Amino acid sequence: MGEAKEEVEELAAISRALSLNIGTLNKDTLDSMMLAGKSANKQRIPVILDPVGAGATAFRKEAIQRILTEIDISVLRCNAGELAAIGGVEWASKGVDAGEGNIDLETLATRVAKEYNLVVAVTGETDIVADGSRVEKITGGDRMMGSVTGMGCLLSAVTAAFTAVSPADPTAAAIEALKFYGAAGEKAAASSNGPGSFREKFLDMLYGRKIEENSFGFEKEEGVDVLWQRSSRY
Amino acid sequence: MGEAKEEVEELAAISRALSLNIGTLNKDTLDSMMLAGKSANKQRIPVILDPVGAGATAFRKEAIQRILTEIDISVLRCNAGELAAIGGVEWASKGVDAGEGNIDLETLATRVAKEYNLVVAVTGETDIVADGSRVEKITGGDRMMGSVTGMGCLLSAVTAAFTAVSPADPTAAAIEALKFYGAAGEKAAASSNGPGSFREKFLDMLYGRKIEENSFGFEKEEGVDVLWQRSSRY
Amino acid sequence: MGEAKEEVEELAAISRALSLNIGTLNKDTLDSMMLAGKSANKQRIPVILDPVGAGATAFRKEAIQRILTEIDISVLRCNAGELAAIGGVEWASKGVDAGEGNIDLETLATRVAKEYNLVVAVTGETDIVADGSRVEKITGGDRMMGSVTGMGCLLSAVTAAFTAVSPADPTAAAIEALKFYGAAGEKAAASSNGPGSFREKFLDMLYGRKIEENSFGFEKEEGVDVLWQRSSRY
Repeated sequence: MGEAKEEVEELAAISRALSLNIGTLNKDTLDSMMLAGKSANKQRIPVILDPVGAGATAFRKEAIQRILTEIDISVLRCNAGELAAIGGVEWASKGVDAGEGNIDLETLATRVAKEYNLVVAVTGETDIVADGSRVEKITGGDRMMGSVTGMGCLLSAVTAAFTAVSPADPTAAAIEALKFYGAAGEKAAASSNGPGSFREKFLDMLYGRKIEENSFGFEKEEGVDVLWQRSSRY
Repeated sequence: MGEAKEEVEELAAISRALSLNIGTLNKDTLDSMMLAGKSANKQRIPVILDPVGAGATAFRKEAIQRILTEIDISVLRCNAGELAAIGGVEWASKGVDAGEGNIDLETLATRVAKEYNLVVAVTGETDIVADGSRVEKITGGDRMMGSVTGMGCLLSAVTAAFTAVSPADPTAAAIEALKFYGAAGEKAAASSNGPGSFREKFLDMLYGRKIEENSFGFEKEEGVDVLWQRSSRY
Repeated sequence: MGEAKEEVEELAAISRALSLNIGTLNKDTLDSMMLAGKSANKQRIPVILDPVGAGATAFRKEAIQRILTEIDISVLRCNAGELAAIGGVEWASKGVDAGEGNIDLETLATRVAKEYNLVVAVTGETDIVADGSRVEKITGGDRMMGSVTGMGCLLSAVTAAFTAVSPADPTAAAIEALKFYGAAGEKAAASSNGPGSFREKFLDMLYGRKIEENSFGFEKEEGVDVLWQRSSRY
């Protein structure tokens, strides 16, 4: 929640996961992100990076490079256009939208995962999680999810919460987060008339959804509130 | 979306319209707006200005003057109180709300349109669009629209999207945007219980609304998604 | 609404209440808050303080001390963890959440109220309002209110609006604001499926709710719109 250089190290240190999001980046908030990220690394707290609009401007490209070079990231949560920018390949992206292209996303995700030693979770019609040795595809979700501002940012926060519960296995955390998010989106979209009602129903779904399997540290039928309780909020 | 001096020129240059909004202005964001506006002018990208609370403080008055003097604005999207402040006439405005007054808004809008060579789109019980040679009145909408924060800011963004599709005729773009917005507001209000449900239904309406006439670059029955696709987002 | 040093004194001076909220504090916004607070004090406009995450970082602790020392606050609107940080007692708080503890909140609220000569309005399962000579407990509300981001911040804004109508009796204003807010929350929760639908229904309730008693400057059956009209917005 904080953004001031004066306090982000302290805030990161009392957290159980840190989500860095460059959506409305400026020079000051970038400095704060560097401090927060290094503080989290020192405390062995997992760091999630959402490289919003990575390829849109030189400022964002440089910021992403600086973050990836100086901070150990657990999960890079992005879309295909952002991943392409980070991987240095061409992509028909204009601004921060994903655009379309024909590169092999699985290969690219694996390459970026290896290069920066992190888990790549790239969302699209099919989501892909790659950690360098393994690639998992996740289907589900709904195209309505692309029509609501902040859905990617919220997914990164949710991924951070899952990673907080499972810091030793960020691959599993990212996969479970994407499945969870996609299923909630699918159910919410089924009873929505547009992005306004979708947003409301989606938040209800995220809140009320029960875990379907005895996995990922949950007992069957435990709700997400357990997850929230186990991950620190601030 | 961006606000950093380091990148706003680049972001503006890859856009198809730029909406400048002084709602939570500070010295840094004003500098960024000047850079973004000049970049948009150089690329012949239409610039929309929302002079939030124009008359409320000396800082805002000076900022507006600086923007209007140094940047070519296509559409000035404001309320009556803000227009009065820009036109230098007395108005019973307190803070950033519109207040009430008896000046002839059509005359004032026309005068400001001529002085700064732009289209004035002023909202109120009846909306007025004036470009110096022509005045159009638009009725519709609902008073509930005045009870939701950000409705004016969103209208400016929607006006920018319409202007992106019709940069050569910002008058038509502003008129169509106001009709579209007002109709969506009227329908949403009809099934709302207050500002909370109105906001949800209004976003659904904006999203789902079909264009009623073969005009403004649309085929009949094309939806707003076509408009969004034609205007760049970032 | 403003945050720029260049204008906050002017904005505060044309207001009827000022709500200071340190949620996303930084050095610049703290400076602006000091200017706004002193301007409000000079004009005898009531100032409400929401010490978000007061105990979470040294920066916040120092900021709160500076505000409480240099500005006359009418109502301190906080949760138990924040009150404990201000009162200098131990509390099992981590980050900005309230945490849990066994101190006597009524005693603590009364002590802080006396020390800083203000009204303390502390929310929790039972809300407490203390002004040094009197303690009032308010029940009601719903636990769903704790699951929506910004509910505390909005309550502070609503408290500011009530105090604007009754600046001479901030104790009564805080009590009425808490009753009003809690009743709206209770009714909204009764027909909600989760935080998404709760938020929508809660805003509808806040808007549509009629005052139940001929008190606090209202006629019976006057709606909240009267309150909004009497408190200046900007």
